[in-house]
Amino acid sequence: MPELRYDPLMKRWVIIATERAARPSDLTSTAKYGHIQKCPFCEGNESFTPPEIMAVRDPHTQPNSPGWKVRVVPNKYPALKTDATSKRMKDGLHERIDGKGAHEVIIESPKHNVDLTDLSNEEIKWVLSVYRQRIRALYKDSHLKYALLFKNHKKAAGASLGHLHSQIIATPIIPQNVKIKLTASQEYFKQNKNCLICDLIQQEIQNKKRIITKNNGFIAIAPYASHFPFEIFIAPLKHSHNFVDISDKDLERFSPFLKDILLRIKLLLEDPPFNFVLHTSPNPDSKLKAPDKWESLPSAYHWHIDIIPRLIRIAGFEWGSGFYINPSTPETAARYLRNINLS
Amino acid sequence: MPELRYDPLMKRWVIIATERAARPSDLTSTAKYGHIQKCPFCEGNESFTPPEIMAVRDPHTQPNSPGWKVRVVPNKYPALKTDATSKRMKDGLHERIDGKGAHEVIIESPKHNVDLTDLSNEEIKWVLSVYRQRIRALYKDSHLKYALLFKNHKKAAGASLGHLHSQIIATPIIPQNVKIKLTASQEYFKQNKNCLICDLIQQEIQNKKRIITKNNGFIAIAPYASHFPFEIFIAPLKHSHNFVDISDKDLERFSPFLKDILLRIKLLLEDPPFNFVLHTSPNPDSKLKAPDKWESLPSAYHWHIDIIPRLIRIAGFEWGSGFYINPSTPETAARYLRNINLS
Repeated sequence: MPELRYDPLMKRWVIIATERAARPSDLTSTAKYGHIQKCPFCEGNESFTPPEIMAVRDPHTQPNSPGWKVRVVPNKYPALKTDATSKRMKDGLHERIDGKGAHEVIIESPKHNVDLTDLSNEEIKWVLSVYRQRIRALYKDSHLKYALLFKNHKKAAGASLGHLHSQIIATPIIPQNVKIKLTASQEYFKQNKNCLICDLIQQEIQNKKRIITKNNGFIAIAPYASHFPFEIFIAPLKHSHNFVDISDKDLERFSPFLKDILLRIKLLLEDPPFNFVLHTSPNPDSKLKAPDKWESLPSAYHWHIDIIPRLIRIAGFEWGSGFYINPSTPETAARYLRNINLS
Repeated sequence: MPELRYDPLMKRWVIIATERAARPSDLTSTAKYGHIQKCPFCEGNESFTPPEIMAVRDPHTQPNSPGWKVRVVPNKYPALKTDATSKRMKDGLHERIDGKGAHEVIIESPKHNVDLTDLSNEEIKWVLSVYRQRIRALYKDSHLKYALLFKNHKKAAGASLGHLHSQIIATPIIPQNVKIKLTASQEYFKQNKNCLICDLIQQEIQNKKRIITKNNGFIAIAPYASHFPFEIFIAPLKHSHNFVDISDKDLERFSPFLKDILLRIKLLLEDPPFNFVLHTSPNPDSKLKAPDKWESLPSAYHWHIDIIPRLIRIAGFEWGSGFYINPSTPETAARYLRNINLS
């Protein structure tokens, strides 16, 4: 069973894979990775994955067979498991929780050599509606306090398979970075009776310099304090704390918007490796104790997506300090991303 | 001038290099890096670096000429500059500080193809005494609130030059991760009238499972909640909050100890890329305002070194959540590192 262990010095939890603990030879550069003959995410290879949790598929087809557009399966090597208890155990200064959680893979196309920018707006809408559906479903389990949806594009960004997919990890605690953002938003809301992200967006709209693009529902910004070169922040213009509340109409607006952004990144930065992270509010049904308590102020949070092209290496300074050095200004990044010719 | 910009959502500062802001083509995978014909860190090439700040050298030799053992120079491309003001400026929700700070390079050997494990104990002692001397010197400037010393070993860990060196970045703010550790230590001290790291070390000594090695002054542990596989935590057994207080006698004990650890990593993990970070207390002479205030409790902190072999890739989940997945247990890591045959 994977374990969550608490680091009292860094005040954060870590997932430790106690089951298939890696030996040194599994991790060194000469380690041999198993060769995959058949892609388990391709149409026709459904039996290579654990049985599907759901799929957008032709009504005349059977689960775990061809005929699908988007398919959700449990991760074969889950970081956390659904069948664990979430009991806390203490041993002196050490504290751990059994690794209760969920780890799902969203296969975003039956075809092998495509990325999101190759899909039609309709197809992207199916993908996004599956995101909405899965987070909603996971939040029915009150043990799962947070669901983090992310995409690793290319090996250098952490992808282990090339076939287009995202992942969701639902955790029995609120992760540290999420807690920092929630707390910052709550404190701001209490002081200003307004949403921090709403106000940030308003300031950026007035200032213009860091806007990449905008439609009638969404905005993409190069954040003022971007940690990474060409980092992108995407959010709905209208206040909304939980991605699962997005309407079908907004999904329709969001699909071409997201495709537009991804196309800009692809063209400007030569299809770079990137990470894509959806930040939404914690499970409103979970019994969150202080200091994780937040549900009294849903108006304080605002869902958003961070896209981080992986263009530079993280070194000792950044690991040690949590203090990032960005060799590029967000104003430059926004200008390049705004002005690129998409036609 | 580099700028420090505040991210109100993540509650942390970011260094933005506004001067030589990178264009997209500087950052993509096809970017051409300048070929270095002569290593600027090699003996005989002293004129390739900015003038030296100090050196351990033969008394008969001149600064910026051969005859040195360890040489400290300003970084040619500094993340922060010594001649800036550290004035704060506000623009609505945005806040920035001119990038006042220092960025130094410690060249740890005049020879090109060596690493720390190739140096004699005496030579490592010189290197460590230079660490002590430079942090002490930087802390004479009360504008510099923190000095972070780090080493990036190999390109995959962020090193841009192969010649053995470390760096120090001194910052006008206390970096976020350091602040988290300081706060955790202070809170623990207030509750328990004892140092958190002292107590953690005692628990590990009793438990034994995660100890890698120990001598009469220092201990190396695989931390209970290790974020990364084969992560190593090194600290003095006797309480000491500031590395600059280390005695000559302890430097003599620490040199072979550090060499021993680095040799274990090198042999076990096939000379992996790694980051090495020295965590010491903030500048006691700086005027720290709350919540950066800590100096009333120097007994609360305990200097330590984190070594992180770079064996796995960081992906979207970790970036987004600050929640790490470690595919290896610290107990396994400690057993392998403890049992390796060094003779």
